Amino acid sequence: MTDQQLPPRLQETERTRHRRLREQGSVDRAELDAILGAGFVCHVGVVVDGVPMVVPTVYGSDGRQLWFHGSVASRSLVTAPETEVCVTVTHVDGLVLARSVFEHGVNYRCAMVYGVPRQVTDPDEKLAGLRCLTEHAAPGQWAYARRPNRKELAATALLALPLDEASVKIRTGGPDDGDGPDAALGLWAGTLPLHTTWGGPEPDPLLPAGIETPPHITNRSRADGR
Amino acid sequence: MTDQQLPPRLQETERTRHRRLREQGSVDRAELDAILGAGFVCHVGVVVDGVPMVVPTVYGSDGRQLWFHGSVASRSLVTAPETEVCVTVTHVDGLVLARSVFEHGVNYRCAMVYGVPRQVTDPDEKLAGLRCLTEHAAPGQWAYARRPNRKELAATALLALPLDEASVKIRTGGPDDGDGPDAALGLWAGTLPLHTTWGGPEPDPLLPAGIETPPHITNRSRADGR
Repeated sequence: MTDQQLPPRLQETERTRHRRLREQGSVDRAELDAILGAGFVCHVGVVVDGVPMVVPTVYGSDGRQLWFHGSVASRSLVTAPETEVCVTVTHVDGLVLARSVFEHGVNYRCAMVYGVPRQVTDPDEKLAGLRCLTEHAAPGQWAYARRPNRKELAATALLALPLDEASVKIRTGGPDDGDGPDAALGLWAGTLPLHTTWGGPEPDPLLPAGIETPPHITNRSRADGR
Repeated sequence: MTDQQLPPRLQETERTRHRRLREQGSVDRAELDAILGAGFVCHVGVVVDGVPMVVPTVYGSDGRQLWFHGSVASRSLVTAPETEVCVTVTHVDGLVLARSVFEHGVNYRCAMVYGVPRQVTDPDEKLAGLRCLTEHAAPGQWAYARRPNRKELAATALLALPLDEASVKIRTGGPDDGDGPDAALGLWAGTLPLHTTWGGPEPDPLLPAGIETPPHITNRSRADGR
């Protein structure tokens, strides 16, 4: 990690260049950060024995690198370190219902990050990375819960992927056939938004009486999800 | 497509056998069907020039095969047909907030389907596949909207992946450290559920006055999301 400023425009490479649906592509680093900031579960794609595996796992981002657990994806990642991965974060915002089936689609925000993740071995860096990941997924819990001890740290595989090569795609708005010949069909068209929201905290049945839910958890349950 | 019954127990192969977190694995085909039925966006993993790409796209399932669009993933899929893919569908159901950071986790349902997708070329089968996909993502729209014409059919790349080799993982319930030494810390622990719900239909701004929202869309907006 350096303090060097990352360029605000994402570098275009052969695989991040937007070929189709160019209007939906973005090379704005702020969009990348916003998409990564709005979620906590990514899909990691890795090649094992020549065959792809796509594994969901928790991640955190500090704007320079994406941290993710190898534990969930142990077979795919711990047995294949220093290999190219593609980490995709997708938010599905709704369905686009057009006059024609052909024009149906999905409103979404998607970031694909490419690169070779580095296995973090330095205990201090591992702690910093886990803190980032934990605070990203469950803000306030790093200060509240018991932090990892040495044994737990050793049992945790943490990977860091630089945010150097990434592709962003976003679709918003209504259907595209409102000014075409299908508009004359007189059919309803529009979008059906999809919302992700936190429910109220559900205490562990084993929790003794008298332990109050801390504010950082009750407050979150009123906020938008992801 | 045949009428032959698929075995209710998923076949275990080298890559679907549950190595870690065995208690979360399932070999129940009904669980696979339920996870696929509860979503409409999957993440397709494909190897392009030896490097993985993970692309979100819309899918449908008829219980025997998973249909998905090649259009969104044109570069990855249309240029690399007859290649091994991994299609993953994940539902994030909430955060597991334990007494220790190490025991934090996510409640989720995940299906990973492996195989070589077949590019559908027969017009009748393509129409049947698109109908399945459309009705899966947007029930009622196949009957309501204008169906694809010959030209649109030709412009749509549709792939069919058999549901023969799949891995299912599910985590539910509270944290696991309620009966361990960390319970004595007196910290709150439990889960924070995440809900996905449909919002109300938003009409296309170009829609003329007087076109009513059809019941299959208004009714869905009161149902659970995904």
